[in-house]
Amino acid sequence: MIYLDHAAATPLSDKALKAMTPYFSDKFFNPSAAYLPAVETRRDYEDAKDRIAHVIGAKGVDLVMTSGATESINLAFSVLAPNAEVLISAVEHASVFENAKRAANYKEIAVDANGRVKLEDLRAKLTPNTQFISICLVSSELGTIQPISDISRIIAEERERRAFAGEKTPLYFHCDASQGLGLLEVKVNRLGVDLLTLNAAKVYGPKGIGALYVGHNVKINPLTVGGGQEMGLRSGTENVAATIAFATAIEEAEKHISFERKRLINLKNRFVKELKDLPNIKFLGNPKFQLQSFLPICLPGLDAERLIFALEDRGVYLSTGAACAASKGIKSRTLSAIGLSDEEIAGSLRISMGKLNDEESIIEAARHIREVVAAEINRLAK
Amino acid sequence: MIYLDHAAATPLSDKALKAMTPYFSDKFFNPSAAYLPAVETRRDYEDAKDRIAHVIGAKGVDLVMTSGATESINLAFSVLAPNAEVLISAVEHASVFENAKRAANYKEIAVDANGRVKLEDLRAKLTPNTQFISICLVSSELGTIQPISDISRIIAEERERRAFAGEKTPLYFHCDASQGLGLLEVKVNRLGVDLLTLNAAKVYGPKGIGALYVGHNVKINPLTVGGGQEMGLRSGTENVAATIAFATAIEEAEKHISFERKRLINLKNRFVKELKDLPNIKFLGNPKFQLQSFLPICLPGLDAERLIFALEDRGVYLSTGAACAASKGIKSRTLSAIGLSDEEIAGSLRISMGKLNDEESIIEAARHIREVVAAEINRLAK
Repeated sequence: MIYLDHAAATPLSDKALKAMTPYFSDKFFNPSAAYLPAVETRRDYEDAKDRIAHVIGAKGVDLVMTSGATESINLAFSVLAPNAEVLISAVEHASVFENAKRAANYKEIAVDANGRVKLEDLRAKLTPNTQFISICLVSSELGTIQPISDISRIIAEERERRAFAGEKTPLYFHCDASQGLGLLEVKVNRLGVDLLTLNAAKVYGPKGIGALYVGHNVKINPLTVGGGQEMGLRSGTENVAATIAFATAIEEAEKHISFERKRLINLKNRFVKELKDLPNIKFLGNPKFQLQSFLPICLPGLDAERLIFALEDRGVYLSTGAACAASKGIKSRTLSAIGLSDEEIAGSLRISMGKLNDEESIIEAARHIREVVAAEINRLAK
Repeated sequence: MIYLDHAAATPLSDKALKAMTPYFSDKFFNPSAAYLPAVETRRDYEDAKDRIAHVIGAKGVDLVMTSGATESINLAFSVLAPNAEVLISAVEHASVFENAKRAANYKEIAVDANGRVKLEDLRAKLTPNTQFISICLVSSELGTIQPISDISRIIAEERERRAFAGEKTPLYFHCDASQGLGLLEVKVNRLGVDLLTLNAAKVYGPKGIGALYVGHNVKINPLTVGGGQEMGLRSGTENVAATIAFATAIEEAEKHISFERKRLINLKNRFVKELKDLPNIKFLGNPKFQLQSFLPICLPGLDAERLIFALEDRGVYLSTGAACAASKGIKSRTLSAIGLSDEEIAGSLRISMGKLNDEESIIEAARHIREVVAAEINRLAK
């Protein structure tokens, strides 16, 4: 198996599995119970939250643990007043897009040919009524890293203007950092965000656990009420085991961040070298602003779905784009937004590398891609 | 350790852990991806949903998987139109209570001294405008089994009356079966419910996974939007591993249901025999309508919290009531509802037995309770 879909899912790290396992058996207690072993389980849970928060330069109490990125994103949107004006980028995940659609009034900020948010378009669309801006750290289809700090400077200017003018309309900045965590340095203060979505499943943690960082003075509204866990912001018995695993996985990624980045750049360069002579191939995005693990490519005139199934027969696994969108055959909004034609979109593949890849597997994968593409071109020529 | 708090949390069954582990590593794929191993993971996931559903006499497509009972309950309440009239029993979990409170207009149905819903009070409070009734299968503090089928008959009569009168107001019946699953036979048709909340964590499955059964013709509204998973009713990457574990745990419980019930009845009888001579002890609830695992007791004049800490020192772990309420020092609504005085409530303990108990541990626990109670009575007498 050669797995090239790390942006869709990552295997759980061995360390994380080992760390979480005791919380299924010996330490299975309900962290809200009063007796000592349960109190110890709660302490481990709070400690894990602190460890996760530390990676993004925050404290455990700033995090609301959720069942994953989608819930975090929905919870971030809970700050919206009815009819609030919302801005999102044109390359957001379906979850941000669907939440924006639910808001009465939203606009998309245009991106350039590499999928980067156009700051001048943000300035043009940011009005005195804008209350919420949601922009991903890294586009999940292109791997494009967004200029979050630049965006937050523009937002800060608008906030200053409002304060000076005595305007009371709040302005919140949410960043979906589902992709990029563990490969980029993500510090809430440096990014200047009010709300940040974290996802364990993309960083070698388990599925079913995520977090929302909530800045001071930001008031989110719970999606679920009940026992009052997570300071009343997210009721339900805490998922201790998964939180411990998340903390372990994210710390492990953080520890090897520069090593892994270098390793992935080398793999990517090698991959590009092996593929660059394919007829009409386009490498999407600009490597300068692209996560090291991403290599989205476009083979105009070919059918990416056919390529994916031909590669599947050879044990090479990759996607056309976000798994959830791909499964429904929805045309990629992201690829439209960067100006690709329908033919180009139909021929686009997302390669996303990670821990399961080494140089040998990349060379092998590239060979399979070349062979499959050659066969497909032959078939079409007949 | 003698653990007597199975109603708060249960350890993960070995079988369930074994069944889930491959989905962290070899089968970690995103079930929405198109390639074969991911498709197989999706098949296993759908199969696990079918297995869970089968236990309650339903099909996998009738289930929406959630992050636990609290989310399921909140999702059940999503059927409510604004200002809908809601009825709940007086012995519901905080999650049902808090959701009812959010609805503009709710009433509590009274219970008898054993914590059983009074059917005549249900009849009295059920009006032509009632849209939603939520009653637990088993009270989480008393273990009292509610007469769900009788309640659903009354609801069916009202529905018939409405149909005959040409009234269009819908009437939904939700049952929180968090407690009782794995010890009671729970079949949606026999119970006559429209919505049923299931929780893995109380039945030796993992925390962080639950389900909502949604009857045909019942339209729930998603709490989270995004990738459109769970038929668009609950977006977010599926928690495959936890769902597989849930299926394994619930099947295991189902297989041993009559054996485990007999075993628990014997343990309970033994426990009662060992405790019955404690001064002024009251066994709460009526064993005829009580889950075999529950033994709630009341020791008027004593401070249950002090007893719990004294028992903790001896390695005996139990609670005063629901863990999430206990941690906040909230006076039990359930115990008030059955007419206990404040003094009686302050002296109440919830013993909940399960797999971690055998006869020896029960005899030992009873001895510790007797000694701790005697010491406390002595202390107070001085």
